[in-house]
Amino acid sequence: MELWYTEKHSENVGITMKVSHSLFSGKSEFQQLEIVETLEYGKMMLLDGLVMVTERDEFIYHDMIVHPALFTHPSPKKILVIGGGDGGSIREIMKHPEVEQAILCEIDGLVIEKSIEFLPTMASEIDGSNPRVKLHVDDGLAYIRDHQNEFDVILVDSTDPIGPAVGLFEEDFYRLVYGALKEDGIMVAQSESPFYHPKIQQAMYANLRNVFPIVEMYQAFIPTYPSGFWSFAFASKRYHPVTDFDAQRAAKRDFYTKYYNEQLHLGAFMLPTFARENIAK
Amino acid sequence: MELWYTEKHSENVGITMKVSHSLFSGKSEFQQLEIVETLEYGKMMLLDGLVMVTERDEFIYHDMIVHPALFTHPSPKKILVIGGGDGGSIREIMKHPEVEQAILCEIDGLVIEKSIEFLPTMASEIDGSNPRVKLHVDDGLAYIRDHQNEFDVILVDSTDPIGPAVGLFEEDFYRLVYGALKEDGIMVAQSESPFYHPKIQQAMYANLRNVFPIVEMYQAFIPTYPSGFWSFAFASKRYHPVTDFDAQRAAKRDFYTKYYNEQLHLGAFMLPTFARENIAK
Repeated sequence: MELWYTEKHSENVGITMKVSHSLFSGKSEFQQLEIVETLEYGKMMLLDGLVMVTERDEFIYHDMIVHPALFTHPSPKKILVIGGGDGGSIREIMKHPEVEQAILCEIDGLVIEKSIEFLPTMASEIDGSNPRVKLHVDDGLAYIRDHQNEFDVILVDSTDPIGPAVGLFEEDFYRLVYGALKEDGIMVAQSESPFYHPKIQQAMYANLRNVFPIVEMYQAFIPTYPSGFWSFAFASKRYHPVTDFDAQRAAKRDFYTKYYNEQLHLGAFMLPTFARENIAK
Repeated sequence: MELWYTEKHSENVGITMKVSHSLFSGKSEFQQLEIVETLEYGKMMLLDGLVMVTERDEFIYHDMIVHPALFTHPSPKKILVIGGGDGGSIREIMKHPEVEQAILCEIDGLVIEKSIEFLPTMASEIDGSNPRVKLHVDDGLAYIRDHQNEFDVILVDSTDPIGPAVGLFEEDFYRLVYGALKEDGIMVAQSESPFYHPKIQQAMYANLRNVFPIVEMYQAFIPTYPSGFWSFAFASKRYHPVTDFDAQRAAKRDFYTKYYNEQLHLGAFMLPTFARENIAK
């Protein structure tokens, strides 16, 4: 029997992938979790039927949610990841020697547990082996409400604004994040596809601009996400991701990045006209 | 009945689109041509079962195959397009007032004929109404062999390196193109996906470097092409697409570009590490 998984990116278009077998299927308190083995993309994790990560292209998403902020902030010591239970963001954060502590606050313990079990290349730093990493199975909103003025960087590594992540796209949440950051802190959040989700982006960037003095969008190619054209919001209290970026420091990193590099950092902020206009003030 | 068109981008992954009806289906001397109406992407043209253009995202491909070269060359007067029978590249070329003559050399007359009939937003400048445009239904190789030292810019707007376009990826062809360009001429060719076609790219860029002194790759998001991550080769006798690019001149253009802009021009050449390394000398 040939098994094909098809994710509809709208009512009328989708991606389809050949699946060899299922590794896990189960329902948590929050969502349906699936891990399958695909022939093209290796192991793939789905939440409520949507692709979250695949082994083959996760390097792009995780390079791009982590390194632009950590190479813009001159001294990123304490980092919070909200969501990101697969561990890929924490793995990239741990490559930065300045980081003293990274905290993962994931609402769904089942995602963490099954990532450790089935996606070890992503979850390598959240399995308890690294003393610089702390895990909290908790609602991100509740957690940051109790941790104000504490973080250099907060990464919102969330699902789409449906289901448990809906609150993570609202202005009230961004105000809490602003408060949880130190006076020169930076937030990065995944911000959907400029091609398929222009309305979500308009609302999200308007909300961010009501809270942060510096808000910029940047882009990455992610083949398994809708349209392949994905974006991130860079919201900052002090440092600008282009004019305050020290390319020399980024070039001297002592670890390999398969997608990110100091030139691409700048190019990622140079957006197509339609994408820039959609979120223009 | 629900009709879904699925294009496999490899044996194990593909894109699937809902189709309302077929507008044309026929076989030319060279290939199978299909034009269908899709719900998400408007009218879509396929050659030998592969997506060539759709009404909704063609602006990206056509902006990016035309404008980087025409804004790098300081005086692009005579332009040749090889392939490109849908007319989209000629439409964008005609927006540049410096261009005195554009020649379309397409091997398959049926593609031109049916584009004029069914894709008028793309074919608007190849229907005989514009005296600055000339059409030749001819093999691109034969045509340039007879037209040496003649063009400021040559655009290779071809299909994939299978079927009638296979010769357009070989070193002998690039030598002919080199000869057909004036002493400061520029060639741009679509160069497949860095994500899915690394081997094709390696061969193509090695061939180009054997012929041209300046060879650079640049990128664009094209949702309906494999992986969404597409690329173009910029091969040039004199002008470098970044260091010789006059952003001021591009910024003063008196036409709208929905994808291209003078900042994105520079960002397009800032490549992900894996894409840059794959074609490194």
